[in-house]
Amino acid sequence: MDKLYAIGVDMGGTNTVVGFVDRRGDIPVRTSISTVDYNTGETYAEALGKAINELIVKHNFSGKITGIGMGVPNGNMNDGTIEKAANIPWAKSEVVPLAAMISEKTGLPCKLTNDANAAALGEMAYGAAKGLKDFIVITLGTGLGSGIVVGGQLVVGHDGFAGELGHTRPVRHNGRLCGCGRTGCLETYASATGVARTAREFLEIYPERKTLLRNITAVPITAKNVYDAAKSGDAMAIEIFEFTGRILGEAIADFIAYSSPKTIILFGGLAHAGDFLLEPLKKAVDKNVLSIFAGKTEITVSTLNDAEAAILGASALAWEA
Amino acid sequence: MDKLYAIGVDMGGTNTVVGFVDRRGDIPVRTSISTVDYNTGETYAEALGKAINELIVKHNFSGKITGIGMGVPNGNMNDGTIEKAANIPWAKSEVVPLAAMISEKTGLPCKLTNDANAAALGEMAYGAAKGLKDFIVITLGTGLGSGIVVGGQLVVGHDGFAGELGHTRPVRHNGRLCGCGRTGCLETYASATGVARTAREFLEIYPERKTLLRNITAVPITAKNVYDAAKSGDAMAIEIFEFTGRILGEAIADFIAYSSPKTIILFGGLAHAGDFLLEPLKKAVDKNVLSIFAGKTEITVSTLNDAEAAILGASALAWEA
Repeated sequence: MDKLYAIGVDMGGTNTVVGFVDRRGDIPVRTSISTVDYNTGETYAEALGKAINELIVKHNFSGKITGIGMGVPNGNMNDGTIEKAANIPWAKSEVVPLAAMISEKTGLPCKLTNDANAAALGEMAYGAAKGLKDFIVITLGTGLGSGIVVGGQLVVGHDGFAGELGHTRPVRHNGRLCGCGRTGCLETYASATGVARTAREFLEIYPERKTLLRNITAVPITAKNVYDAAKSGDAMAIEIFEFTGRILGEAIADFIAYSSPKTIILFGGLAHAGDFLLEPLKKAVDKNVLSIFAGKTEITVSTLNDAEAAILGASALAWEA
Repeated sequence: MDKLYAIGVDMGGTNTVVGFVDRRGDIPVRTSISTVDYNTGETYAEALGKAINELIVKHNFSGKITGIGMGVPNGNMNDGTIEKAANIPWAKSEVVPLAAMISEKTGLPCKLTNDANAAALGEMAYGAAKGLKDFIVITLGTGLGSGIVVGGQLVVGHDGFAGELGHTRPVRHNGRLCGCGRTGCLETYASATGVARTAREFLEIYPERKTLLRNITAVPITAKNVYDAAKSGDAMAIEIFEFTGRILGEAIADFIAYSSPKTIILFGGLAHAGDFLLEPLKKAVDKNVLSIFAGKTEITVSTLNDAEAAILGASALAWEA
């Protein structure tokens, strides 16, 4: 019998969401468990396996599932492990063979990868990358993640950890301090956190300039504040997105020289800033890209539903497996 | 019958060298023709086809050849074309479907790619990348070329032109003018030409410093002059290699974040500078690489014979085809 569903698991820092996905990308059945209420990988795997098995019985899905795909922080696709994920208590300082554990609990094949790679697979199966063999998904959230597909294959590298474009360094000297301990990483500029940081810098550098951003005093400025100000026509807020788009565009010009993707898909919160970000970004790509690649790479925003994209992407891994 | 030989064709700016290569990488039969003594792609293809066919008859190789692989300037592997190659008179402003033409003249399958990609395939078939699925070959000659292998597949991109690492830009602002018309490209620093340029800059910036390089007056300084001076213990010459190695090492740290290669193989004239270049390069990689990749990527110099590597690499394309 043809398998009808793939299970997609999106492990977030708080909850783990499970969806049963059909070939069209519909998600008729869902559930979720806590990610963090467990002391060991074993007890987490047991809870997740139990949740999946119960749904299979309840909906009479036995024999109809092709397998399980998971998007997890610091997921190593080659080994099926979650490795030293800072925000997951039971995997903080360990290498947990999670795919094998879930496979054992459910009797289903299980593969995992990191969130950005799952997003790339989701775009290929259900989104803007349908039919494409060479593309990059850049996720613009708290940090900058990336999933690179080359010749139809996810780039995972010899160790399973390739595709860390947020930690390439466009600003080599006197760049911003990054959470990774180095300076000048792309994600310190091109991410929601990066935009907020640029806002704080601009306010300090230009004390004489008037801007709506000076009215925000209660909490540290967020990317959302900058977006709202830009929508109101605030010149400094618009410049902050121009600055962000320029740095990301210059970096993308280098990514194009590397793997010559047909399309670059922006995903995540900051991608919704729309033309405030996209216009200067595209301009910077055009200005900086090597002439043989000029005008060849489309830059677009994901059309997948933010809440569902991670499950879809993870499930795409199961269809592949 | 098992095929015994692949034909490797290395098209240089002056001559085109043809070798019949066996599975061990021995080249029992060779010939060459001019690259430039032709007005059209058709007459060149005819001459090359004739040279190949004559050797097949002479050595009774009929039926023993698996195919022809070619390394050509501006070679597009997807389309089998040579596209606007500035130094080839019959392809200067045209797109010539050379693979199909050679296949037609010889009755053998023919594939082509650019020189650096051919070098990568050569390393995988016969050299330092034997058995590796993720590696990068960086060719350090007049310019900087690169062949990237990911998951066992050459990265060619959607248009056949991926892998232009020489035109990623480590120096985004106030960088050196590059032949491509932009500034700050890696190859303006990390190449034989780049080393000579650094020498001229250092001589100008430090007029008071003593160095053997000031004795060279007859011609513009070359990378070879700098190497000879470094071997004699000249401090400035050694610093020139340190400067070059540092910039290349910082760039390689970014390449590792992209595709996490197991090995990076340096090839070509400048790679022979040995530890003068390698030591500062490795130090810069160690200092700049993201911690999850630290110590994982080996950086090494090609062991293939310079004169034969291009033919071996091109022939590897034919074994693949």
